[in-house]
Amino acid sequence: MKNFVSYDKVDLKDGFWLDRYNLNKEVSIPAIQARFEDTGRFEAMRFTHGKDSPRLHIFYDSDTAKWMEAVAYLVKKDRAGMKKYEEFCDALIDSMEKHQRADGYLNSYFQQIASDKIYSCRDWHELYCAGHLLEGAIAYAQATGKDKFLNVMKRVMDCIYNNFIAEKKANFITPGHEEIELALFRLYEYTGEEKYKEMAEFFLKNRGNNDKDITIYPNAPKGSQDDVDIYNLKEANGHSVRALYLYSGIADMALAENDEKLIANLDSVWDDIVNRKMYITGEVGSTYRSESFTVPYDLPNMTAYAESCCAIAFIMFSQRMRKIRKCACYGDITERIMYNSLLSSTSLSGKAFFYENPLEIALEEVGREQAKDPKDREHLPIRQRLEVFGCSCCPPNINRIFGRFMDNICFEDECCLAVEQYIPSVVNSAYGKVEIDGDYIKDGKMTISSNDYNKEYISLRIPSWCNNYTVLLDGKKVEVEQKDGYVCVKVGQKFVISIDFELECKFVKSNPKVRANAGRVALTRGPVVYCLEGVDNGDRLNRIAVDIDEAKSAKVYKDGFTGLYSIEMKGYKEADDDRLYYGADETAYNEVTLKFIPYFAFANRGESDMLVWVRRK
Amino acid sequence: MKNFVSYDKVDLKDGFWLDRYNLNKEVSIPAIQARFEDTGRFEAMRFTHGKDSPRLHIFYDSDTAKWMEAVAYLVKKDRAGMKKYEEFCDALIDSMEKHQRADGYLNSYFQQIASDKIYSCRDWHELYCAGHLLEGAIAYAQATGKDKFLNVMKRVMDCIYNNFIAEKKANFITPGHEEIELALFRLYEYTGEEKYKEMAEFFLKNRGNNDKDITIYPNAPKGSQDDVDIYNLKEANGHSVRALYLYSGIADMALAENDEKLIANLDSVWDDIVNRKMYITGEVGSTYRSESFTVPYDLPNMTAYAESCCAIAFIMFSQRMRKIRKCACYGDITERIMYNSLLSSTSLSGKAFFYENPLEIALEEVGREQAKDPKDREHLPIRQRLEVFGCSCCPPNINRIFGRFMDNICFEDECCLAVEQYIPSVVNSAYGKVEIDGDYIKDGKMTISSNDYNKEYISLRIPSWCNNYTVLLDGKKVEVEQKDGYVCVKVGQKFVISIDFELECKFVKSNPKVRANAGRVALTRGPVVYCLEGVDNGDRLNRIAVDIDEAKSAKVYKDGFTGLYSIEMKGYKEADDDRLYYGADETAYNEVTLKFIPYFAFANRGESDMLVWVRRK
Repeated sequence: MKNFVSYDKVDLKDGFWLDRYNLNKEVSIPAIQARFEDTGRFEAMRFTHGKDSPRLHIFYDSDTAKWMEAVAYLVKKDRAGMKKYEEFCDALIDSMEKHQRADGYLNSYFQQIASDKIYSCRDWHELYCAGHLLEGAIAYAQATGKDKFLNVMKRVMDCIYNNFIAEKKANFITPGHEEIELALFRLYEYTGEEKYKEMAEFFLKNRGNNDKDITIYPNAPKGSQDDVDIYNLKEANGHSVRALYLYSGIADMALAENDEKLIANLDSVWDDIVNRKMYITGEVGSTYRSESFTVPYDLPNMTAYAESCCAIAFIMFSQRMRKIRKCACYGDITERIMYNSLLSSTSLSGKAFFYENPLEIALEEVGREQAKDPKDREHLPIRQRLEVFGCSCCPPNINRIFGRFMDNICFEDECCLAVEQYIPSVVNSAYGKVEIDGDYIKDGKMTISSNDYNKEYISLRIPSWCNNYTVLLDGKKVEVEQKDGYVCVKVGQKFVISIDFELECKFVKSNPKVRANAGRVALTRGPVVYCLEGVDNGDRLNRIAVDIDEAKSAKVYKDGFTGLYSIEMKGYKEADDDRLYYGADETAYNEVTLKFIPYFAFANRGESDMLVWVRRK
Repeated sequence: MKNFVSYDKVDLKDGFWLDRYNLNKEVSIPAIQARFEDTGRFEAMRFTHGKDSPRLHIFYDSDTAKWMEAVAYLVKKDRAGMKKYEEFCDALIDSMEKHQRADGYLNSYFQQIASDKIYSCRDWHELYCAGHLLEGAIAYAQATGKDKFLNVMKRVMDCIYNNFIAEKKANFITPGHEEIELALFRLYEYTGEEKYKEMAEFFLKNRGNNDKDITIYPNAPKGSQDDVDIYNLKEANGHSVRALYLYSGIADMALAENDEKLIANLDSVWDDIVNRKMYITGEVGSTYRSESFTVPYDLPNMTAYAESCCAIAFIMFSQRMRKIRKCACYGDITERIMYNSLLSSTSLSGKAFFYENPLEIALEEVGREQAKDPKDREHLPIRQRLEVFGCSCCPPNINRIFGRFMDNICFEDECCLAVEQYIPSVVNSAYGKVEIDGDYIKDGKMTISSNDYNKEYISLRIPSWCNNYTVLLDGKKVEVEQKDGYVCVKVGQKFVISIDFELECKFVKSNPKVRANAGRVALTRGPVVYCLEGVDNGDRLNRIAVDIDEAKSAKVYKDGFTGLYSIEMKGYKEADDDRLYYGADETAYNEVTLKFIPYFAFANRGESDMLVWVRRK
């Protein structure tokens, strides 16, 4: 046993995260259902695509699959309450079964639009769609006990096996967009059938290691993770969502095979991301060009790609790394993503979503871009979340990660339970029912308690942002030693641990190699990264400078709209001037009160400038 | 009389600018002659283009024309010494005369390559080439007294008159690339013939004011100055070289017609450029996209277009504005351009040239760009000057502006002589021989003297960078009043004025609306803008911060390679760190000695990082 306590064994208690869980369940999931109905995504899977239908896309099956997977998690938690979703899915599944070809092939786009192009181009997302449908099918089987969907998908996998492995009839060997690898490991884990592991490993081992795969994706082979095979992988490269799905698949293989070489390579990749290629919000993907990782320390803020799917995929990768080894760094990254980029992906209304999550908006630059010929424009991300987009991979991905959000809270291994995330919940672990209480972001004070714990120790992750904390066991201070970022507390069957994390407003800086952030600082409080918005602080936010010592006397308050806390602080706004150039000794600042809001809540009050990395005075 | 004292009446004395004048004469002009021979530019005009010839370009005649114009200025100053150039030009002129069509048409490209396309597309530079050839012909007639070239070009102008004005047979009305307007005013001024003024005004008045002109140039109509007519012009827009040639032509018209409305519009445009759209180096053109002006305060440093031809065209515009009115601002801009962007256009060797003159080079970003698919790359300027380029408009433009460089020094009007630029020289003005001596950039101490001055006053421009100065007349301090940036000194026939401009190292800032320079300062000393180069200060120059007060104790020294002075100063370099994000209170600086060199001398010691706008500590 070495895994997270599954979402179905954990119930969230009242608080910020239960609100967000419910927002996903009650608003986002039905909103996306409606948009997917509008845009023909479900119609595609009903195989009723006709002349008057909206245009189909090659990746629509994956959108439907992710939404169904999300719904499965709701059904698992509340089958009676979610009956309408189960019925909706059953109808879709009947259609899939009905239209699946005799050889097992199933893809709504290729069967209806391009049946002569099946398995002809690796960049056309067929295996990616199959992978997502497979994940949906497993989740659906686990939630309902019904196996129709899963059987359909097993036949799809047989079809893939025949075409790619047994008979090698497909026009390529590995998928252009990775995903099926980790889905196959999930099927292997669920069924125990070696064949699926063999398939996953076939796709992994052949990647970057064969002459047949060509890609039409820009910047190939690096852009498509084809430049190097998994045994020589050292750096994070190319399309960042695809890369993180690949690394997750490799981690599954490393775990399944206990392959030290692969683990060492994943460690390199992890290090490359978190120490050189990650935004402070936990996002990755520095450029829209190929939606990809670039080079170390290249972290532009305004043109950041930072796709919502990256946030999700990075949590998936960190969860797998945590299974490989007990180290607090994985929970730290998950926490960083959760409180920043994952939350920013969705509007506070729950109905609109970001594809990209930039760290700066300067509306004046948008004006400059719009004055240009469209073909000459730089890529600036959208400034407002949308209800649906053409390539709408993120919204249903958000649905499914929130659907099983409780997965992240506790980890079980042979030794004990480890608290990974400080989220109020009841955790029905293998070692007893453990309750987590407190308001982490309010005051850093949490209690972890149990009445029936049957292990000697319980392990607590100490977040890396916290320099001082105290631990009380049953009201008495205990001396604890930190190892790999955790403290282990020796407990009885019945215990109450109180842990008090010192939570302070703190300005953080970047490595000096990050050009974009030279001379700039970001305000943080615990895991929450803050930003300035124009709606609170006026436009042209680069006029503003901060004295980092002011953080000590900042006012932290529940702001009433983000669900968390905003911060007010003295700052300095440069005075306007008519001159273009003048003496630096004439720099004039006006003292102002700055209002920082949690980064994730930006762009919820109309179009506005936004800035994370503020100039230091 | 209201004009600059012409270059042929002024002789430079020993010093920095004579060295640069001679570098142009002795190195740059023959170097470009050789490159133009290599690349088939002269061959084109010899009409010997054949199957094995280098590819012709539509704008080659303008390159040849500008070089011939430059040579004419040398011939004017030293006919015997420059005989080889006169012979070379005479042969080219013979070829032009021989191949000019009976209707007067002359263009080496269209006659040899595309005779069916004559006057069919306004973006194909025919009128631009004709304008430059006309300027060359006037200069050549003035230099040699020979009129063959000028007669050829008068016939070309007749051909243009017939096609564009009399018979309206051309497929467009106004040129895609302005230049012919100011050339025609020059011909009008030289010959006094009204027809040429009429032609110039025809092209000016119809611009932005007709439905026939369409352009293939990006961002039209604004990008090609077709969005607004000259009577409604308020802002600088579009391709920046073309725009400045247009504004120069409008200024010629405003002067010729004494048109107050046009003058008011030129004042608006001037204000828009110098107060909102000009780099500190005097350059303009913020983007390579359409090589153009963008919006106010958009002055990116690394991707600055800032074409060398803009520096030259901006001097041309400022000279004309000076003719319109006496104000020191025009000489200030000329001086800013001269000491910075004009000089930076040429290598210290004299053999290589910049098309673009960026204000920052970060080689790490170049690496990032080069890792990208070519079609996905941002445009970063070249990092080293080249001997010749495909579109080699700048090098011969540099030749010709240096060939008549002495034009900028003094201005004569009815009242008196005005010293515009403090450059050691003997000025044979209408009011007597005036000598200018001193080393302006060394210590700011200049003397202006005469033995035969026949006006009551002499006027001295006070540079805007100077806050304190003293004026001595014949050894005695005089109280002077500054008006429109000038002081007027009452002098006798024989006088010696000593003027002492306080010259200090000074950090300058940008308007807070300039996003690119937020929190940054540029070091200046008098008109000279400084930069840091990697070769002196290590790479990643954004690690460096300065305390502006250190400027007071800076060490200024003759550096032995730029011809001017470099500056050493205490600065701060951020210490490297392995972490990507850490507490701002842990920022660690190492004290270093920074070496600033004059901006213009960057990229003369190999590829290197370069930075003008340095972070303020």
